[in-house]
Amino acid sequence: MVTQARFEVRTRGREVRDVTADVARVVAGSGVETGLCSVFIRHTSASLMVCENADPAVLRDMEAFMARLVVDGDPLFEHSAEGPDDMPAHVRSVLTQTSLTLPVTDGRLALGTWQGVFLWEHRYAPHRRTIVVTVTG
Amino acid sequence: MVTQARFEVRTRGREVRDVTADVARVVAGSGVETGLCSVFIRHTSASLMVCENADPAVLRDMEAFMARLVVDGDPLFEHSAEGPDDMPAHVRSVLTQTSLTLPVTDGRLALGTWQGVFLWEHRYAPHRRTIVVTVTG
Amino acid sequence: MVTQARFEVRTRGREVRDVTADVARVVAGSGVETGLCSVFIRHTSASLMVCENADPAVLRDMEAFMARLVVDGDPLFEHSAEGPDDMPAHVRSVLTQTSLTLPVTDGRLALGTWQGVFLWEHRYAPHRRTIVVTVTG
Repeated sequence: MVTQARFEVRTRGREVRDVTADVARVVAGSGVETGLCSVFIRHTSASLMVCENADPAVLRDMEAFMARLVVDGDPLFEHSAEGPDDMPAHVRSVLTQTSLTLPVTDGRLALGTWQGVFLWEHRYAPHRRTIVVTVTG
Repeated sequence: MVTQARFEVRTRGREVRDVTADVARVVAGSGVETGLCSVFIRHTSASLMVCENADPAVLRDMEAFMARLVVDGDPLFEHSAEGPDDMPAHVRSVLTQTSLTLPVTDGRLALGTWQGVFLWEHRYAPHRRTIVVTVTG
Repeated sequence: MVTQARFEVRTRGREVRDVTADVARVVAGSGVETGLCSVFIRHTSASLMVCENADPAVLRDMEAFMARLVVDGDPLFEHSAEGPDDMPAHVRSVLTQTSLTLPVTDGRLALGTWQGVFLWEHRYAPHRRTIVVTVTG
């Protein structure tokens, strides 16, 4: 049994967005009781992560860490046609996730209590981002 | 065909633990000959990685690298309610893996000769960590 | 329905290689219309990533960033039996991907327009690298 759906997230520029409910909706509609839920983002300058879902400071700290690790406008980067956030966005994507595979148990995402699924927009400008969810079981 | 099982690892605090045999046991019991084995950790302060399985120095070096990259008690971090290892544990998890998808061939994990599956505990204190294994084929 | 195939890439030493067409060929041959394509590399010193596929400068910048982050010959590393690129190769692998899960839609990889699938060789010397592709649906 395979169900596949897409949804779009309109980001407001660099930010982290909780998409757990959007993914859970596809799982609920799939009728799969035991199986897997694949989450895939069709971009290379926005990415996915599973992260702590309770304290907003965790997401701020995550952004602060990443911004210090991958410096916008770093003269190391040759590819800067779209601005100082262009190449850093690709690096941030590679250091995080483009695809996540989550277990489905009893018809629901079997995430831990403190786990959420997040889309991380790495570009400064607002973008439309497409996520593909595939549920199998 | 879908088989799903959970197992618990009691960590002794920050450490890397080989869980390859635990995962392989679920694959062996599944009866799946050709397919996939998904490994998922239900936490955001412990993570998974596929790493070299022969020389223990590799795991020590991995920890040394990560400890230097993500500094415990870094004043950058706002989220430190649970101590200096709290936010670094979340960052380490995001930089490594929460989910792994491994091929199953001839009824066994098709890992390379030097590959093992490891749980990385990022907190100082001992924890009970739950891993969900889903085998499909 | 499960199809599994392997292919080998002979790398010329440290480099990034586009393997999208090799993966797509397995998907095309599988007959799967809607499902998932798992890509797995059976090594711990070469890895996978989804990255921008249009401007070669992106791949050069990615390598430059990684080379600065994980310094070859770093005295921090104890495991250096095979040379200054030995332990850095393992770290680079852990910071990127060993497994990717890609959606299949209408019988094809549902990658975004600018996404390619790349093998990243982290060792200086040429190697034969094996990738396992599993298509389910």
